[in-house]
Amino acid sequence: MTGIEILPVTGLPEVQPGDMIADLIAERVSLRRGDVVVVTQKIVSKAEGRLVPLSPDDPAARLELIEAESRRVLRRRGDLVISETPHGFVCANAGVDVSNVEPGWAALLPVDPDRSARRIRDGLQARTGTTVGVIVSDTFGRPWRIGLTDVAVGCAGVAAVVDLRGTPDAAGRPLEVTEVAVADALAGAADLVMGKAAGVPVAVVRGVPEAWLRESSVRDEVVRPHAEDLFR
Amino acid sequence: MTGIEILPVTGLPEVQPGDMIADLIAERVSLRRGDVVVVTQKIVSKAEGRLVPLSPDDPAARLELIEAESRRVLRRRGDLVISETPHGFVCANAGVDVSNVEPGWAALLPVDPDRSARRIRDGLQARTGTTVGVIVSDTFGRPWRIGLTDVAVGCAGVAAVVDLRGTPDAAGRPLEVTEVAVADALAGAADLVMGKAAGVPVAVVRGVPEAWLRESSVRDEVVRPHAEDLFR
Repeated sequence: MTGIEILPVTGLPEVQPGDMIADLIAERVSLRRGDVVVVTQKIVSKAEGRLVPLSPDDPAARLELIEAESRRVLRRRGDLVISETPHGFVCANAGVDVSNVEPGWAALLPVDPDRSARRIRDGLQARTGTTVGVIVSDTFGRPWRIGLTDVAVGCAGVAAVVDLRGTPDAAGRPLEVTEVAVADALAGAADLVMGKAAGVPVAVVRGVPEAWLRESSVRDEVVRPHAEDLFR
Repeated sequence: MTGIEILPVTGLPEVQPGDMIADLIAERVSLRRGDVVVVTQKIVSKAEGRLVPLSPDDPAARLELIEAESRRVLRRRGDLVISETPHGFVCANAGVDVSNVEPGWAALLPVDPDRSARRIRDGLQARTGTTVGVIVSDTFGRPWRIGLTDVAVGCAGVAAVVDLRGTPDAAGRPLEVTEVAVADALAGAADLVMGKAAGVPVAVVRGVPEAWLRESSVRDEVVRPHAEDLFR
């Protein structure tokens, strides 16, 4: 097996509502068949106009907005709300985010991040004639462990989860583990070249196994159904 | 910023108790200054002799072993136990694992995975004269999301967490987010070239930012103190 490369896509302009992200990417990077393009949620939300006015001096309005973006609140502590979004994601503040957004505004999660990923993938395909995967990523905390990691909130043309159940281990016995969260690992890997403050909202992961390149959906494959969830 | 490469280290023999992992790696890959070497917990546990007999037909013995390796059980469902290990990790079955282990045996987590990482790092440095970082990784599930990802259970010479609090965002305003779980992202990225069944237990991540290369500890920096944890 050969290696994997993670390449930052630099020089993107500040994204505005209505911008075609696929065009902005295709103008700046030469894509190859099977590349996975990871796009941070923030610029997807901006391009899709998922921005709402929010005064930095109005914590009550912020809380109201977070609750409007939540299906259910799991925990609260001080300013922090851990809630479940309409997509089924459990994250801080329902994804309402004011960093890297114009002062006085907040960015919301895309309405359907899988659809956002498909739209970018289709645009890249139309523009370049190249079949690629696309992941829309966001930065989430985790219980029990300090620190944030990037995970996939939407995907197209690349597996969200690869099921290795039944695959023999190196000694030929069936593996106990099982379903690998490939899209989340790709999103986290892409973040290694992005840097939160570096203004690099897109990266290309090159060298992904062919078998991972298929139609998929974060919502269908990653969001754990309530009945199976021990922590919801 | 340039890209990052993830390279599998192939051709490692089946690791036995007493093996020097640093030697096995140094013989097979030409390391460069600043490389981060990610080693899966399984071979570290084998080298350290963290193996115990466990009949595959004795679920009661398995449960007893899991409880002995747990500080506290958080959830149970059927065969699955989610518990907190003496290290403070919350994971399935206290890390007791029979895949990729000789039949009739189970592998336990290293007693002190940060120390395991330091030992491998020191061995690589002594053997190659090259300063590298080392991460010991394991495969954990997460609440709320289907699929497993690799995370760091120990590290040496590379930051577990990089604190971006106070760093300005691309527009010059202070970032809300904050602490990035760099070692976990590196562990997850390394898993992209390992594959659970592929028998590749080591990968090299090349091109990591210089600022991340420092002394660190997963136990000290990643394990979230109980008082700060909303889900423990």
